[in-house]
Amino acid sequence: MSDLVTLAEIEAAARRLLGVAVRTPLIRYPGEPLWIKPESLQPIGAFKIRGAYAAMTSDVLGGARPSGVVAHSSGNHAQAVAYAARELGVRAVLVIPHDAPDVKVRECVRLGAEVVLVDPTMEARTETAERLARAHGYDLIAPFDDRRVIAGQGTVGLEIMTDAPEAGVVLVPVGGGGLLAGTAVAVKSLGRGTRVVGVEPALAADARDSFLLGRPVAWDVKDTRRTVADALRVDRVGNIPFQHIAEYVDDIVTVTEEEIRETMRLLAVRTRLVAEPAGAVAAAAFLFHREELPPGDAVAVLSGGNVDPDLFFSPS
Amino acid sequence: MSDLVTLAEIEAAARRLLGVAVRTPLIRYPGEPLWIKPESLQPIGAFKIRGAYAAMTSDVLGGARPSGVVAHSSGNHAQAVAYAARELGVRAVLVIPHDAPDVKVRECVRLGAEVVLVDPTMEARTETAERLARAHGYDLIAPFDDRRVIAGQGTVGLEIMTDAPEAGVVLVPVGGGGLLAGTAVAVKSLGRGTRVVGVEPALAADARDSFLLGRPVAWDVKDTRRTVADALRVDRVGNIPFQHIAEYVDDIVTVTEEEIRETMRLLAVRTRLVAEPAGAVAAAAFLFHREELPPGDAVAVLSGGNVDPDLFFSPS
Repeated sequence: MSDLVTLAEIEAAARRLLGVAVRTPLIRYPGEPLWIKPESLQPIGAFKIRGAYAAMTSDVLGGARPSGVVAHSSGNHAQAVAYAARELGVRAVLVIPHDAPDVKVRECVRLGAEVVLVDPTMEARTETAERLARAHGYDLIAPFDDRRVIAGQGTVGLEIMTDAPEAGVVLVPVGGGGLLAGTAVAVKSLGRGTRVVGVEPALAADARDSFLLGRPVAWDVKDTRRTVADALRVDRVGNIPFQHIAEYVDDIVTVTEEEIRETMRLLAVRTRLVAEPAGAVAAAAFLFHREELPPGDAVAVLSGGNVDPDLFFSPS
Repeated sequence: MSDLVTLAEIEAAARRLLGVAVRTPLIRYPGEPLWIKPESLQPIGAFKIRGAYAAMTSDVLGGARPSGVVAHSSGNHAQAVAYAARELGVRAVLVIPHDAPDVKVRECVRLGAEVVLVDPTMEARTETAERLARAHGYDLIAPFDDRRVIAGQGTVGLEIMTDAPEAGVVLVPVGGGGLLAGTAVAVKSLGRGTRVVGVEPALAADARDSFLLGRPVAWDVKDTRRTVADALRVDRVGNIPFQHIAEYVDDIVTVTEEEIRETMRLLAVRTRLVAEPAGAVAAAAFLFHREELPPGDAVAVLSGGNVDPDLFFSPS
């Protein structure tokens, strides 16, 4: 068991992220004691830039920056690594399943990354990424199972506690668990009784099951792929994130597909924010499952806004 | 001729707005030297909260706050006055043209204001508002033709110059001219050669004509109503804003209806921001008329995001 990420590590990550990540404000949801943390406003449109950049500038590497980085991802983590690499002037090699949307692949190329297309299996992705990292001597940046990444994502919690120190509950989407883990460390270290609750689709509730059983359990990939929340189709919470979740998180609740779609629409109309499906789950938990949540003002993390235009603009 | 608003007045307004207006960050438009100032993230979804709250807390009133306020507006100013009045615990009566979007009217009622619907002419609006103000003994908060309001809107320019001091040009939507006037004072007082350009729909180009002729000229209301940008259907720039525009603004350019609609979609997909049509005109000027603009990095003010859902979600 590795040591848990500390508040000091998150604070150090926050200093490195100054001028790189947007200091997102809290946006009030009208008529409800609910505030939205719009990580959709980050470069590349998701919180992932925090963890990727924090990992690539971490003291864990002895202050030295890698000459290049490798990552495997079909979504926001790939773009985050590409963006961070360009900011730092290092090379990025991204291992992407060949069935990933063209638009995401093109965006990585536009950001200057080298893209290697592989079969869409976790084995092909990890094996290729590890081989390329070894061959080039590059650093492998995991999407969530990495203390450096968790420390970076934790800066979300740091900012929430600065802006809303009296919040009753912070609601956080959970896929691989990096955002929830880091945010929970910051909120529990700084808050005065503020609760932390993870939120995931009922159709991909492996984190809820893991939380209840006290150990990470996997869902069948075919099952998790049913949810519209593509960024939360991870079949299993990471081991390192899970250790933090077991220690710091108060509960994990689930939302339906219909609640996710309706919340995407409500966020656009009421808070003028574009949420991808995964980005809407935390607000959906407040709007549709308030009775399951701890009392008090709520902060919901809107984790990202990279939604397929056809899905976003289609009448629900 | 009244004195022009000073940088000191804008700075004083900024201090009063702390904790009331959101300190909006600049959001990068990917792949272009363009930054978006998302005033859509303000309470009530538009920059108008700045001017309304600044006016209602102004020293010009000798420090005393009104027992009630009256305002006339096609939408966002009305919501701003309603919101500010609730924050300050004073009554608000709002005079709104009957063709304003339903979503804006409903929101005013939700905020506790009394709404009076009138014909969409400036005469009907001002006459009714003045009559109600006299009858109740309330303070009239004009949407733009008021130095206190202009000072409040100018805080947008103050923040832009803090975050992007090297910007080549700041692009600002112009309807009644309050936002353009205030922003221009701040940018020209603080900037090192940064240009300020107003943007309006070609179908409601009264400000462009006024700029060219050197005096405020009105368009026929029937003509200005053709544009989808409902917040810019003002038929004539205000006298006080115009004095500032004549002194500080470098140019006024126009955009087409098609450019406005396409930019709304691009802002949602590329920057994850919901813009109402008026909120998209400044970015549209950069994306479609760059050859008409001064060189350098651009900041486009996204003035508001209160768009009718049927318009926003309909395929263009």
